[in-house]
Amino acid sequence: MADAVGFTDAELSADGFLGGKITLLQPRSGYRAGVDPVFLAAAVNARAGQRVLELGCGAGQALLCLGARVPDLALSGVELQAPYADLARRNAAANAASARIWTADLTALPAELRQQSFDHVIANPPYYRAGAHSPAQDAGRRTALGEGTPLDLWFETAARRLAPRGYLHMIQRADRLPDMIAAARGRLGSLEVLPLAPRVGRAAELVILRARKGGRGDFCLHPPLILHEGAAHERDGEDYSAPVRAILRSAAELPWPGS
Amino acid sequence: MADAVGFTDAELSADGFLGGKITLLQPRSGYRAGVDPVFLAAAVNARAGQRVLELGCGAGQALLCLGARVPDLALSGVELQAPYADLARRNAAANAASARIWTADLTALPAELRQQSFDHVIANPPYYRAGAHSPAQDAGRRTALGEGTPLDLWFETAARRLAPRGYLHMIQRADRLPDMIAAARGRLGSLEVLPLAPRVGRAAELVILRARKGGRGDFCLHPPLILHEGAAHERDGEDYSAPVRAILRSAAELPWPGS
Repeated sequence: MADAVGFTDAELSADGFLGGKITLLQPRSGYRAGVDPVFLAAAVNARAGQRVLELGCGAGQALLCLGARVPDLALSGVELQAPYADLARRNAAANAASARIWTADLTALPAELRQQSFDHVIANPPYYRAGAHSPAQDAGRRTALGEGTPLDLWFETAARRLAPRGYLHMIQRADRLPDMIAAARGRLGSLEVLPLAPRVGRAAELVILRARKGGRGDFCLHPPLILHEGAAHERDGEDYSAPVRAILRSAAELPWPGS
Repeated sequence: MADAVGFTDAELSADGFLGGKITLLQPRSGYRAGVDPVFLAAAVNARAGQRVLELGCGAGQALLCLGARVPDLALSGVELQAPYADLARRNAAANAASARIWTADLTALPAELRQQSFDHVIANPPYYRAGAHSPAQDAGRRTALGEGTPLDLWFETAARRLAPRGYLHMIQRADRLPDMIAAARGRLGSLEVLPLAPRVGRAAELVILRARKGGRGDFCLHPPLILHEGAAHERDGEDYSAPVRAILRSAAELPWPGS
């Protein structure tokens, strides 16, 4: 399991992402990436040559999905848990991606990283408040899912590391939107919220927040991206909507409405 | 125009609401109600016999639309501008509604009102921040549209006047959602947001916020209520969606998703 020693090969599985465009090692029984880091990567409006920092990069899923879509990015990741940071380095190398991964607490970044600024910061912070849910049995999974660091500190670190006019993209549970908005206040502007709803007519379960350092635009609540077709799960196999299939299987960019 | 003297009959028009269920006098050239107070009234989950207070009730549109749908409500309204408060009293009498209208600043309520609590507070606060837009020429319309009182004070007054477990419903421009969420913090809980989008695939222009005094439920971002059919305005006349037609023409309750 995830400890200072790292994962053994037997503890890892190799999983394809973006229709097989990249293959990533993940722990079989620790924290395993779902589609959320893929959506996060697809939502980022990065252009070739820009600098991207992921806070809490895990095994590198979002960072490497973004690198597979947009060429020539300077990718950096920070990960608290050393075995996951090691995996992220292995995954970057195996996919011929140039990524610098730092094993560090995002509230105490290394001096060298604190001297850098980024065009983009991305994050998929843990979804559960500490103590709010029954803890996962696996310690690494518990850290990856549970909130050791309050959301406010993710925004503080992101705002500090962003260059002027740089963007933060964050994917998070929809019920944390008030916390995200509160944490962005006074730090980032031009907030845009893209709700991700499981089906038509259902409440959003996830949101992607886009915010800009120094942004002064109005808050914008976009129409939801609908993940699954139909009003309910009606047949075996996947029923992703067309834009979601394009994101997951063809490495398409997530189409922000109106942009 | 709207001054301490009040409107002359020539300055007023009588307009039908809810498919003619009620008729309300409004100034021809001052602040005229659109569909927003009708949506607000339709969104309130009031039951017969409950006490309802509207902050900034204008000529009484929302209060009287709600009274026309739900029987036996004890209706109260606060309005800063005396001529509009007078109109609200005339409108209540003309529609055989029992409503107590107070001419007062919502930040300095009369002592008698401060001793009362309410099952519901409703509000359609002015949409524009002071100084953010070119002022209306009519003084009464300017006060009704412009923000003399910060949104935060609307929430403070609402929270004080609500009984335990009582509900606030507020309709407001979607770009003010961060301000609404910030103002609700520490005062009201169980926030639910219903976006009102002009058409499918378009960003929300308005939101209705539902919040509960003492509520501890998760924040919920509902799917948008789509106001108009089609992707663009394609023909003369109204193209309201079916649920919106039912609200505007048949005094239907606004169907909160999942409730």
